[in-house]
Amino acid sequence: MTAPAFSAWTQEVQLEVERALDAFLPPATAVPHKLHEAMRYTTLGGGKRVRPLLAYAAGALFGADAAALARVAGAVEMIHVYSLVHDDMPCMDDDALRRGKPTVHVAYDEATALLVGDTLQAQAFEVLAGADLPPARLVQMMRLLAQAAGSAGMCGGQAIDLDSVGLALKREELERMHQLKTGAMLRVSVVLGALAGRDLAADELQALDKYSAAVGLAFQVVDDVLDATADSATLGKTAGKDAADNKPTYVSILGLEPSRALAEQLRREAHDALAPFGDNAQRLRELADLIVQRKA
Amino acid sequence: MTAPAFSAWTQEVQLEVERALDAFLPPATAVPHKLHEAMRYTTLGGGKRVRPLLAYAAGALFGADAAALARVAGAVEMIHVYSLVHDDMPCMDDDALRRGKPTVHVAYDEATALLVGDTLQAQAFEVLAGADLPPARLVQMMRLLAQAAGSAGMCGGQAIDLDSVGLALKREELERMHQLKTGAMLRVSVVLGALAGRDLAADELQALDKYSAAVGLAFQVVDDVLDATADSATLGKTAGKDAADNKPTYVSILGLEPSRALAEQLRREAHDALAPFGDNAQRLRELADLIVQRKA
Repeated sequence: MTAPAFSAWTQEVQLEVERALDAFLPPATAVPHKLHEAMRYTTLGGGKRVRPLLAYAAGALFGADAAALARVAGAVEMIHVYSLVHDDMPCMDDDALRRGKPTVHVAYDEATALLVGDTLQAQAFEVLAGADLPPARLVQMMRLLAQAAGSAGMCGGQAIDLDSVGLALKREELERMHQLKTGAMLRVSVVLGALAGRDLAADELQALDKYSAAVGLAFQVVDDVLDATADSATLGKTAGKDAADNKPTYVSILGLEPSRALAEQLRREAHDALAPFGDNAQRLRELADLIVQRKA
Repeated sequence: MTAPAFSAWTQEVQLEVERALDAFLPPATAVPHKLHEAMRYTTLGGGKRVRPLLAYAAGALFGADAAALARVAGAVEMIHVYSLVHDDMPCMDDDALRRGKPTVHVAYDEATALLVGDTLQAQAFEVLAGADLPPARLVQMMRLLAQAAGSAGMCGGQAIDLDSVGLALKREELERMHQLKTGAMLRVSVVLGALAGRDLAADELQALDKYSAAVGLAFQVVDDVLDATADSATLGKTAGKDAADNKPTYVSILGLEPSRALAEQLRREAHDALAPFGDNAQRLRELADLIVQRKA
């Protein structure tokens, strides 16, 4: 049996993730209704599900079973969605549009947006804690998720981003910010997907880290290129926001064409990192291609 | 050797918790400086540490070691502190004073307050994940912490609280709100402290749950009494806030004296729940007394 084509596989994973998130989220009929409804409003029915796709692709490489992968994917996506809800709030980016819909504080109110994010973060850890995996490995996975979400990861990157508005960042500083803000959660999605399959040897973890670092950075470079070139309808969020907010981007530091060339170089680095895994890493390779070649 | 007097014990635990939090928080010298400084500003040097005291008292009953208890106490206190930081924000209670100091969004800014809370929640799970305990039990503990912090616990109670402003809640509805908003984290502090010692039998867990339910409710009743009778300087936060915000309280529903009588009744229920544990539960009994008889 040959593996399904990549686009069929991504659609299958996205459907599976949608089903899993629907099952992991509290029902809107349960009290408190508004909180649960808003959690479902912002989590379900949208998003590229890049982190879950990375987890499934890495899981496929290490023989992870479907139930464990659904929990890993649900957990990383909930952390991601909570970060979007909080980032969109007026005291942060003050954005009204996300995934083509009004943001939570616009559709509901600020207090609900705050609570939706807080609750999704707790829910992410609850979902992962329920995975049927060897406990010692599961503890390791929960620790990695907490580190990736915290001040040495996503939140730390967000704080550096806030502190950088209006500053002329050097390229290395911009890179460090993105390694934390976006890269840490992309990396942990790959690693947790792999750990859902089995324990990893040091060289396997190192290869996955190289891949994740390249893909994570490429993701951000492409985001900056799209923010500068695509329109809001295509992106499902407000385009041109970074320039308007005077935020440093790869396009503002390197220029448009060098940014595109950098993304392509990172795509090749991601492929090279996967060489030890042979054909089994096909989905991870295709994901690197998707991340660099996407139009939204 | 006799056990130290209760007041000496609480001081010793509070010092130990302060040391533990100081060690578990990222140093202010690490990037991002402002985030780490604000996390330390709001977490260190204040607070009654009620949840850590409950964890240590329950841990003493089940032979927990000091290092594991420090992680449990650090984790529950970080969750508590994050909830205070977010609750104080303008879109929630809009409070300027907490633990006798300006709140985080006043001392820093709203975006920092949002990130401080988000980061402390992640950090709590990271701290607990680092406990040197049997992995299967530790996974159970992390799951319980996530449940207590999420929509079936603290965040859910907060959402019900928000939805109740200006409504004439019945006593049972008020009780349900507090069981989630405050009770869930108090309960999990007791249970995690005990689990830091050993696995619990069903009847032991049931006894601890009865104790926690009584203490949790008593805590809130006394909070309402103090909010109505003490001044801001004594409380270290804005007094009379609930009445001014038109929030339902035990005092507004039952009246002042019946509220005091209820607190005393709950104190006795907490003692009764501990009967199966004999003298070893002395610290838990004394904590119930402290919670009911406190003046701030």
